[in-house]
Parts: sequence; structure tokens; C-alpha cells
Amino acid sequence: MSLTRFLFGRSLANKEAEGRKIGVLEGLPAMGLDGLGSAAYGSEAMLTVLAVTGAAGLSAIGPITWVILILLAIVFLSYWQTIATYPSNGGAYTVARENLGTDAGLLAAAALMVDYMLNVAVGISAGIGALASAIPAIHAYTLPFCLAVLAVVTLVNLRGTRESGLVFAGPTYVFIASLAVVLVTGASMAFTANAHPAAVIAPPALATAEPVSLWLLLRAFAAGCTAMTGVEAVSNGVGAFREPRVRHAHRTLAAIVVVLGLLLLGIAYVARAYGISAMDETAEGYRSVLSQIVEAVFGRGWIYNVTIASVLAVLCLSANTSFVGFPRLCRQIASDGYLPKAFAVPGRRLVYTAGILFLAGGAGLLLIGFGGITDRLIPLFAVGAFLSFTMSQAGMATHWLRAQTRDTIRLGINGTGALATMAALIIILIAKFEDGAWLTIVIIPATLVLLRIINRYYANLDQQLLQPVERRLDLSTQSPPLIVIPISRWDRVSQNALAYALRLSPDIVALHCTELSGPDAEEIVARIRTDWQRDVEAPAREAGIAAPRLVVEPSPYRSVLAPLLRQIAGLRADQPNRCIAVLIPLLIEARWWEVLLHTHHERRLRTALLRHGGADTAVIGVPWQLQPPDPGRGIAEEEQG
Amino acid sequence: MSLTRFLFGRSLANKEAEGRKIGVLEGLPAMGLDGLGSAAYGSEAMLTVLAVTGAAGLSAIGPITWVILILLAIVFLSYWQTIATYPSNGGAYTVARENLGTDAGLLAAAALMVDYMLNVAVGISAGIGALASAIPAIHAYTLPFCLAVLAVVTLVNLRGTRESGLVFAGPTYVFIASLAVVLVTGASMAFTANAHPAAVIAPPALATAEPVSLWLLLRAFAAGCTAMTGVEAVSNGVGAFREPRVRHAHRTLAAIVVVLGLLLLGIAYVARAYGISAMDETAEGYRSVLSQIVEAVFGRGWIYNVTIASVLAVLCLSANTSFVGFPRLCRQIASDGYLPKAFAVPGRRLVYTAGILFLAGGAGLLLIGFGGITDRLIPLFAVGAFLSFTMSQAGMATHWLRAQTRDTIRLGINGTGALATMAALIIILIAKFEDGAWLTIVIIPATLVLLRIINRYYANLDQQLLQPVERRLDLSTQSPPLIVIPISRWDRVSQNALAYALRLSPDIVALHCTELSGPDAEEIVARIRTDWQRDVEAPAREAGIAAPRLVVEPSPYRSVLAPLLRQIAGLRADQPNRCIAVLIPLLIEARWWEVLLHTHHERRLRTALLRHGGADTAVIGVPWQLQPPDPGRGIAEEEQG
Repeated sequence: MSLTRFLFGRSLANKEAEGRKIGVLEGLPAMGLDGLGSAAYGSEAMLTVLAVTGAAGLSAIGPITWVILILLAIVFLSYWQTIATYPSNGGAYTVARENLGTDAGLLAAAALMVDYMLNVAVGISAGIGALASAIPAIHAYTLPFCLAVLAVVTLVNLRGTRESGLVFAGPTYVFIASLAVVLVTGASMAFTANAHPAAVIAPPALATAEPVSLWLLLRAFAAGCTAMTGVEAVSNGVGAFREPRVRHAHRTLAAIVVVLGLLLLGIAYVARAYGISAMDETAEGYRSVLSQIVEAVFGRGWIYNVTIASVLAVLCLSANTSFVGFPRLCRQIASDGYLPKAFAVPGRRLVYTAGILFLAGGAGLLLIGFGGITDRLIPLFAVGAFLSFTMSQAGMATHWLRAQTRDTIRLGINGTGALATMAALIIILIAKFEDGAWLTIVIIPATLVLLRIINRYYANLDQQLLQPVERRLDLSTQSPPLIVIPISRWDRVSQNALAYALRLSPDIVALHCTELSGPDAEEIVARIRTDWQRDVEAPAREAGIAAPRLVVEPSPYRSVLAPLLRQIAGLRADQPNRCIAVLIPLLIEARWWEVLLHTHHERRLRTALLRHGGADTAVIGVPWQLQPPDPGRGIAEEEQG
Repeated sequence: MSLTRFLFGRSLANKEAEGRKIGVLEGLPAMGLDGLGSAAYGSEAMLTVLAVTGAAGLSAIGPITWVILILLAIVFLSYWQTIATYPSNGGAYTVARENLGTDAGLLAAAALMVDYMLNVAVGISAGIGALASAIPAIHAYTLPFCLAVLAVVTLVNLRGTRESGLVFAGPTYVFIASLAVVLVTGASMAFTANAHPAAVIAPPALATAEPVSLWLLLRAFAAGCTAMTGVEAVSNGVGAFREPRVRHAHRTLAAIVVVLGLLLLGIAYVARAYGISAMDETAEGYRSVLSQIVEAVFGRGWIYNVTIASVLAVLCLSANTSFVGFPRLCRQIASDGYLPKAFAVPGRRLVYTAGILFLAGGAGLLLIGFGGITDRLIPLFAVGAFLSFTMSQAGMATHWLRAQTRDTIRLGINGTGALATMAALIIILIAKFEDGAWLTIVIIPATLVLLRIINRYYANLDQQLLQPVERRLDLSTQSPPLIVIPISRWDRVSQNALAYALRLSPDIVALHCTELSGPDAEEIVARIRTDWQRDVEAPAREAGIAAPRLVVEPSPYRSVLAPLLRQIAGLRADQPNRCIAVLIPLLIEARWWEVLLHTHHERRLRTALLRHGGADTAVIGVPWQLQPPDPGRGIAEEEQG
């Protein structure tokens, strides 16, 4: 128990939930890491597409970045309205479901779930990939490093949202500050040098030029759109803010979008001024675009180290946004009966443990499946985000259309948002289809179908459980059950259990299973019968009650279950109107590690009996608690209990 | 259930055990893969040490190989006698324990356990390492490949020893045949060409010569001794052979030793004739010694492919020897009470599942910890094997010393064996100490201490359980228990459970926990109370029995456990002489995947109650089985049941 507490902290009461909520300062790291971190790989992905065209392509970075910034502004305004309209839960799921119907809501939910999971894998693998290009020795251990980071992020989140906000605040603010210093310095040097600044460490020469085609520009735009993923996190997590929650959520969203926009703009301007493009990630001597920018502006010194370290930290921790959003989304879907109920159970620390563990497991499988390599994961990414953007904005537009008083400005904003994000989604789907986006297109509808199947299961279940023919208690049979006790040897555990059984029913059968056969077995059985007569039958006779019967059965398959089920079937045939109970003597360990020293076949036996023993067969566990060897401690515990 | 059966095969009865035993043909692959596979890395390890000395060192390969072969012959004769003397279980553990005392036996056991586990990791990593030097693209995925092979070997062994013998027979015999063809051809070509044959593909030139020192020769010998690991496997596993088991075991041992000796001799002769030495494994273009030999004799053709493929297979599968020996050894130690009892429980397929899983888990951790790289694992290896050789031979020598009629020849053989292996052990310890052998020297005694601690635990346990003050049944209290039922909502599951409770005791408290507070909660509670009066109290009054009492408790920590424990404490204070039972209504799923759709807090509740509910608190599970939606199937099951 104390290990659990050390790792996860003390258990929290329901009324403490308000005190666990966050403000803007913790909200930016907790919900913005995804959005901010994607500035690093979004620009890089865009430049990777443009790299083949040399200087001509590099001059396209400005226009494309402006298009992305306009799209970002539209999405920002749209989500601003969503947060104000749905202050409790303005996620794409809720908005689409309430305005466009259940299936639209579930489609948005499936898209979000897939993207959250991909975000964890992409963020962590990008961080470790960048670390490996800085320190080549790490390269061989990419996957173990990725899984270790995943484990740490998971653990921090199991402690609670507020803690994760505080732990991750440091790297986030260092990241923003150091990139601001680098980009502002770089931009002012470029400005004073008439847009031709001298680099401290020169970037490699640009590639020989291929012609710039429209197709190439579209692909660069689709790649750059990954920079926008994560913007929706705030609207999904409004419930995590403290009151006034709408104001806190608005300010957090604005802070994230403004910082993200400035970063994208700064990177584009400085990269173009210094003639920096993306290098081939698989080739020797690879450095990321951000790494080249810092080298060009400041060279390799402590500023380089601090900046790159904070980039690495933010990339790895951008996974955290998913850990805030995914469990809340799943809780909501589970409350509506479309996901298993375990997702709606708050854990010890008021976070949704099942969602966190499911997310960690899924992301872990993605990392293992793709070997922790970012390049292979990126094409799957962004489809889900833009699908949920579109569903959410379309839902909001419908909301304004149906409203009592037509508000043209608001309708215009959300309508534009819906059309713009849908256009971007179509471009992304076409441009990335062959590289892996098709996989997302398969998985999202499959998830939708799964959610539907789960919902039908729960509906059937409630029908079975809540619409009984007769709600009144049925008291037609009142006789006590026939009790069967499996007894392996006559010790204090079985003695205690048998005494307990005699308080419940006068009809008791003790079942001893013998694995052996031949003369040895017969001798053992004879001794057991003698003991039984002396230790059980004689005292029962003296007390004037019916003595428990001893049955010895062979067990050729080494299992107690089969003889027990035979015994139950026999008893049921003899007395069809009686119900049956199997009483299992249990040895309860005093300390946790003792669990390793016992075989626990009782647990398996209980599960099997409940499943196969028939409708009227109960299973009773009678504990016999082991005393720890220290006698003083034993007495102290008895006084407490 | 059908998945288990598909993966692991049908359950086997005790009497089928004899039919599961193996002969020489299956015994050679099942127990000899370790010994034969080590021919590949033993020679390579020896040549790696000698490589720095160029041609002068290469000429030392002959003498060192002869010393190892003499040692092998001594060990062979010693184990031949051991098998004849201990036909049921001639492992180092038994032999040392019976002749040198318990501590000596446990020391041998600890040494064997550590070496078995290392063998799995070394075999698999050597195989995948060799594969990676043949196909460089695999290099980045070394660890995932290692773990996948480990999973396959584990699965095959969970199916049973006989199956693994048959599955692995193919690669083993191809390995022996193809190496025989290569070595015989190479040797005859060398012989006809006056010991200077022309290579088809010439090996790289030998290194410039450093002087050959005695220290270097000792280190080469210590490295070469890894080729002898695995020879003890047969003596540990005599019980797995069919009758006449001694003859089958003798023939298997002889076959393994003869093949191993010929392989070592052949490799040494051909390597020396063609001037082949070990290459640097970390450098580009690395090829193993065996690979160079096959290239020199036949070039790169189909013979090369077949040979290298069989070497890879045998190296990976040499891990299998451990999967035969380790679980049997653990079962024996567990039966003596020095390991947890779970190791002595035969599983569905008559293999010792716990031992197999523990071995797989430990080897998996070793592979992950050392990144699947053979070079780092090898120095830890062979210490355990030679320690167990020494303990076993010393035990046999003591056996002959104590015998009624002094048998000087037998005493001489085992005495020589003990002295020779002890000398080798000392050389290995000194030569490999810095490279990692010190770790083995720490772990083996630590394991010994752990075995002792486990044994003391079981001794204490038996004292508590089997020496009660009174063996006769205590029937002083006879009143039925007070029953507490946690009820979350009034549905068929709780209805069924309450009806069952009334058969066990007239004193029943139903506990409803409410998480909410405020006016909503009060309304819900009022409705629950009305339902209770109509559905429970009224029928009970009509039937003329005491009505179960409904208690509603707040649950600020969302847990049913704390209110339940409070209720139990209250009842116990009121009626100190009554025992208590908590009856938990259980919903039992009809199909396995439904498990995922329920929260299973009942299971955690039961465990906590048994542990913290006090000595006289039993836990009763009353099942309510869900019907699968298909009505026809439901009726069919009712007819069966």
C-alpha cells in the first residue's frame, strides 16, 4: 500500500476536486505543449517537402506559412465561440453530437481518440529522434528511450492533472523564452543586414533546384498543417479549469495560439533569411531546422544547449496534452454508454485511470510497431485533428443556424472555420494518402463501429437487468444451501472454514481430492478418514449436530474444479430445490510479498465456479489471516482492529 | 477457452505423462542444442582473444582446443557415472545436496539457475547478432527480434517438452550435417594441399603480431570454455527420457559430446589451415568465424545459405535447453521447499508453467538490460556452468569415498573431473573477473540466501498451520452470521443476491453508498427507500420473516470499502459474539470479451475485505449469469446444465 501511495500520492476526496482545477499558468503547459511542440516538427515537415526545390522552394515558405496562420486564426476564433457556448465540455464530440446527431459526434470522437494516441507516439519519438541526432550514441536505444519517457509521462499523469501542469511548466516556459531570444535576435540581425545576415555556423548549401509545382506546394501545406494539431485541446478540457472557467480557458487558448503563430512566423522568416532548409534525416550528420537556426544565430554555446534541451523536453512532453484530453474524452463517451464503464471511474487521484492506461498502452504499441521512428508516424497524423476541427465547426454553425435570434457574425465565423478546415482536410487526405493517411481512414470508421457495438451491448444489458418480470423479492424457497468445502489437508485454515460452514447450514460435504493412485494413496486416505472421525465427527456428535460428510475423490487432471463440479451436479440431482454454496478456505498473507509464495489456485477456482457452477451456486471465501512472525506487531494490530 | 486450447493444446492427464517422455532422437535437439550451439560462439570467443597476436596466436588454437577436448572427455566420463548412479535426477543440485550437504546443493542449484537464464539470453542474442551481420538492415531491430524469438521459444515450450523436441529437430540435424560437409571438405582440401589450401573467398589478412603471453593463452582458454556449457543438461533431465531411461540418457549424452568434440576439432583445424581468425564485431563488414570458414571452402552459394541459416536457428534455439532444464530444476527445489510452491505445480500440458514463465521473464529482462548484445553477456557466462560441474563431480567423488566397497576407478574419474573443472573455474574467474564475471559472483550467493529465506518462510508457515493448540473442531458458537450486502441499484443481480442472503441468515443489512450530496442526492435516497419498502419489506412481512434493513451511507472517497468496513465495525461492536459475512452480488459475463466491459470493482472489494475485514468476516459471492443475446443458445445451455 505504501508503494502505491509513494508513487501516486494520497487518495483524494470528491470535494477536493475543485482544488485540483487549473488556471492559465498551469493550463498553458498542461494543454498547450502539443500545440507549441508541433511548431518544431510542423515547420520541419513543410521544409522537408520543399527541400528538393532549393532556393525557389524556400521562398515559398512565407506564403504557405501565412496561409497556415490565417487558418489558425479562423480556428482560434471558432474555438473561442465554442468555449463560450459550451463552457462545461466544448469538445468536438459534444458539439457535433448535440447539433449534428449521435453518429457525427461519435465520428468526431473516434477522430479525436486516434489523433490523441498518435500525438503521444509522434511527440515522444520526435523528441528522442532529435536527441539521437544530437547524441549519436543514443541512436541504437531509440525504442527503449521512447518507452521510458512514455512510462514517466504516464506516471506523472496518474498523480493528477495539476501535478503534471506544474512539473511540465519549467521546460515549456524555457522553450518559449529561449526560442523568442533566438528568433528575435535572428530576425533583427537579418533586418539590419538587409535580409542577408552572416551566419555564425553556416547552414549547408541548398539543393540544386527542381521546379516548384502546385502539387509540391499543396504537399508542403499538408505537411505544415501538423503544426496546428493540439489547438482543440483547450475546448475539450474546459472542465479542468477553475472558476471563472470560460475566462481561464479563453486566456489559455489565446496564449497558445499567439505563441504558436509567432513561433511559426519567426521560424519561417529566419530560415528564409539565412537560407536554411531541412536536411535528410536518414543521412549522416543530420541536424534539425531548429538546430540549424540556433547554430546560425548564436553558434554552438550554452544558448544552443539550453534551447535544444528545451525543444527536446517540450517535444517529449507534448504527449502530455493527450494525457489531459484523452481520459476526459473517454470518460464522457463512457458516461454516454459508448465505451466500457471503467473509463468513467475516477481513480485514487481524481483522474480517469483507465483512460490514461489505455492511452499509454496504445501509444506504446504504436511506438513498438513503428520502431519509434517519427517519419513513419507523421503521415498518419493530422487527419484526425482536421476531421474533428471540421465536425466541431460544422456543429457550431448548425447551432447558430438553429438559434432563436440569427447571429450572422458568429455563424459566419464558424461557417468559415468549417469550410476552411474541411478544405485543409481534403488537401491533407489527398497529399498524404499514399504515405499512410489511408490507415487513419480505415481506423476512424472502425472505431466508430466499435463504439456503436459497445453501446448496443449496454442497452441489452440494462434491458436484462432492469426490466425483471417481478420487482418484488421472491421468498418462495427458504432452506439453507448445501455447502461443499474442498479440503486439501487438515490444518488451521480448513478447521476455521469448517467451523464457519456449520454456522451457515447443517448440510455439509467436505471434498478431498487425491492426485495419487495405488497403495500409497489408499494409506493416506485411510489416515485422513481416521483423523476426520476423531477431529470432526466426534465433536459434532457431542454437540448434537449432524456431522459434515467427508468425500474422497480421485483427480486425474490435478484440478479440484472437475471433482467439485461433479459433486455439485450430484447434489443438485439429489435435492433439486436446494441451492448450493462452495466454501473455500483461504490463507490470507500478512505482507504483500507473501503473495509470491502461494499458488492462488483458490482465486482461479472461485472464478471458474462462479462461471460454470450454475445459477444458484454461491462461492464463500472464509479467511484465515497469517500472523507476521514478530509477536509484538501482531498484538498491536489486534488492539487496533 | 478455445484460444488457450489452440495455443497450448488440450489438457493432459497424469497417466499420459509416460507417453510424453522422449528418446535419443528427440533428446539430442531438446537437450543438446545448448552444447552444440556453443561450438559456434566458443571457438569464436577463443579466436577473438587470440586475434591480436596474428599467425603466432592462430597456431595456439590447436593446443588450447586439445586441452578443452580433454576436459570435455573428463566431464563426459564423470557425467556418464552420475547418470548411472542417479537415474531419477542426477542434476548437480541432487548430487551435491545428497553428498556434500544442503548448502552445497543450494549453491549448485543457484549456479545452475543463473547459468540457465544467461544461456537463454546469450543464445538468442548470438543468433540475432549473427543474423544482423548477415543482413545489416536488421541491426536497428536487434532487441525486438530477440524478444520475438524469446516469445516463440516460450510458447513452444508451454505446449510441452516432446513438441519442442520435434519442432527443433529439423534445424539441429541440418546444422550437424551441413557443418560436417563443410568441415570434412575443408579438412580434406587442406590435407591434399599440404596444409595450404586455396580459399574460394579469401579471409582478411591476419593482424600484425603482438607477442603470445601465458596470460593471453589463459584468457583464450577461459573464453573457449564457453563451448562446454550445456553438457550437464542431460544429467539434469534424465527424468524426461522414456524407459530404459539410463540407456537413452547415456546415448544422448554420448551423441552430444562426440558431435561437439568433432565440431570444435574441425573448426580449429580448418581455421588454422585457411588462416582464419576472428574479426572485430563492432567494425563494418564483420563476418563470424563460421561464416569465413564456409566462404573459404565453398564460397557464397546455397551451401553457405543453408549452413548459416542452420547456425542461426541452432543459436537461437539453444535457448531451448534451458527451457527443458530450468523448470525441472525449479520444480525439484520447490518440492524441497526452497522456491515458491507455484514452481512445483504442473500446468495443463504437464510442464512446469511457472518455471518457464520465470525463465522467459528473467531472460527478457537480461536481453532488455544488455540491449540484446552478445559481447556484454558472454563474460557473465560459463562461471555458473563450471561451478555446477565442480559441485556435481565433488559430490560424486564423495559418494564413491563413502561407498561400502571402494571403487578406485570410479572415484578416480569423478575426482579428476572435480579437480579439472575446479581448475578451469578458477582460470575462468580470474581471466573474466573484470569483464563481468564479478556480477555472477555476487548474484549466485545472493540467490542462495534467497532460497534459504524462502525455506524459512515455509517452515514458519507450517508451524503456524499444522501445530494448532486443538486439532478438534471448535463448535462453541453456532449462531448464523450477520450479513452485509452492498447494493448499488435495485436490479435482478441484487434481487437474486438478497434472496440468497435470506437463506443463510435472518439478520441482513443492505448498504447503499451515495457519492452525491445536496438536494439531488436526497431525492434519489427517498426513491430508493420507497422502492425498498414496496419490493423488499412488504414481501418479507407477508412471508412472516424479519425484513432486511436498508442503510444509506455517504461515500466521499467514491469507494464502497470504507463505508463497508465502518458498518462491519459497528455490527461487531453491537454483537461481539456473532461472525460477519459480506455478500457481494456478482454479474457473471457469458462471453470472455464481456470482461472488458465491466469494472470488476467487486474483485478488488473482495480482496480488500478478506485482508482488512477481520478474522471472522467471510466474503460470499452470489452470481447472476448473463444470458447471451441468442435465445436458442441460452435454452440449450439450460438443458445441459
